[in-house]
Amino acid sequence: MKLFLKIKYDGTNYAGYQVQNNAPTIQSELNKATSELFGFKCDITGCSRTDAGVHATCFCATVQRHSSDELETGIPIERIAQALNVRLPDDISVFHAEFVPSDFHSRYDVKSKTYEYRILNALYKDPFELNRAFHFSKVIGDDDLLNMQKAAHAFCGKKDFSAFMAAGSKITDAVRTVYDCTVQRNGDIITVRITADGFLYNMVRIICGTLIEVGKGNISPEDISEIILSRDRKRAGATLPPHGLYLVDVKY
Amino acid sequence: MKLFLKIKYDGTNYAGYQVQNNAPTIQSELNKATSELFGFKCDITGCSRTDAGVHATCFCATVQRHSSDELETGIPIERIAQALNVRLPDDISVFHAEFVPSDFHSRYDVKSKTYEYRILNALYKDPFELNRAFHFSKVIGDDDLLNMQKAAHAFCGKKDFSAFMAAGSKITDAVRTVYDCTVQRNGDIITVRITADGFLYNMVRIICGTLIEVGKGNISPEDISEIILSRDRKRAGATLPPHGLYLVDVKY
Repeated sequence: MKLFLKIKYDGTNYAGYQVQNNAPTIQSELNKATSELFGFKCDITGCSRTDAGVHATCFCATVQRHSSDELETGIPIERIAQALNVRLPDDISVFHAEFVPSDFHSRYDVKSKTYEYRILNALYKDPFELNRAFHFSKVIGDDDLLNMQKAAHAFCGKKDFSAFMAAGSKITDAVRTVYDCTVQRNGDIITVRITADGFLYNMVRIICGTLIEVGKGNISPEDISEIILSRDRKRAGATLPPHGLYLVDVKY
Repeated sequence: MKLFLKIKYDGTNYAGYQVQNNAPTIQSELNKATSELFGFKCDITGCSRTDAGVHATCFCATVQRHSSDELETGIPIERIAQALNVRLPDDISVFHAEFVPSDFHSRYDVKSKTYEYRILNALYKDPFELNRAFHFSKVIGDDDLLNMQKAAHAFCGKKDFSAFMAAGSKITDAVRTVYDCTVQRNGDIITVRITADGFLYNMVRIICGTLIEVGKGNISPEDISEIILSRDRKRAGATLPPHGLYLVDVKY
């Protein structure tokens, strides 16, 4: 058995999920907290590698004893989340803990992941959205929002998303299946929500940058299929900044 | 004419609204930004004095030339909010600006103010609610929430709120009219919303501390009227911390 955790974090003050030299990361904080709690060095395996500034409301990870497939502990499972929380910084929180079989893999066993991208679409900055939403100050009208919603739908399906992958990525198979892609407005916040079996590097942020171009009237919803088929990164929109991005769900 | 502003701020990094020596305040930031924009020293008059850590989604203030009742400027009114925003820190934002007559007073002319108090009612901490909600980790059941809602209703009306005033306050007339007091749950967040013609020092935070005692079953909804009549601060609940409190509306 090993330990399975669900975690929330505000990524603002971290150099991303994965351990790096000389930079605070989510993984290194999880390493410290688990080693301190269990009394031995632990290995943490995360469901994905979020970039610097990216947030998560549901990140999944497993914990096992270093160089082992197991985690043995006398601590009751219902106490583990809170015991880790007091050892983690305020901007990282464990909200679920359970034991899973040793052959479970938090990355390889993922069936789908869901990301949300939050856009503050208001004339003026909002102190409560600082580092939590991308500020796009030209207010998008209802017709343009409808176009963004149509364009979002065009991303659904099993397609080669090379046009929506960071230039220089070394991935050879860029085919992914997008199960759902929606755009919703709630007050000043426009949320793009995308579920897929996997994501290319910067894929969500480039899709959102392309949807912003649709909102500005520079790309029409009908253009999306053609841009996908072109497999040309230059045809898609800009890569939006990381601080609007949230990993919100992982299905196994 | 003078300038009337509506402002949002995250109060986390401030020693409250009002100017103090050697501490950052909202008023001192407004002073700096307006003086820089208009090219002369300005006086700022706020609608109230929020404490350190308290937030606002709608704080009202007027701006006039120092030692004058007027503010003359060649800057078009529709440009002023954005021109101030670029001169203000990221955690303060002006979202409305208009000219008002010189005899308008942002504090004395207030008809009612509305505060909200946000309670994170969840077993575990939430990174996204850090400094933005009071964490109460014993989850309140539906029956206890109903009692909190009944108790909230008992605060409505014109009453002497001495029992809900910080000990040591020098106010002689503690009669205030509460127009509305509600408790609502949305996911993990319980929001108390109170509208009144005026508030005593710490009144909202003490009312919320009392409502938490109702949620815990230590005070019944029927006790509230009696606690109010007692005018005894010791009968009411604790003063909840400032970081859950938001000024959300001001009516003139």
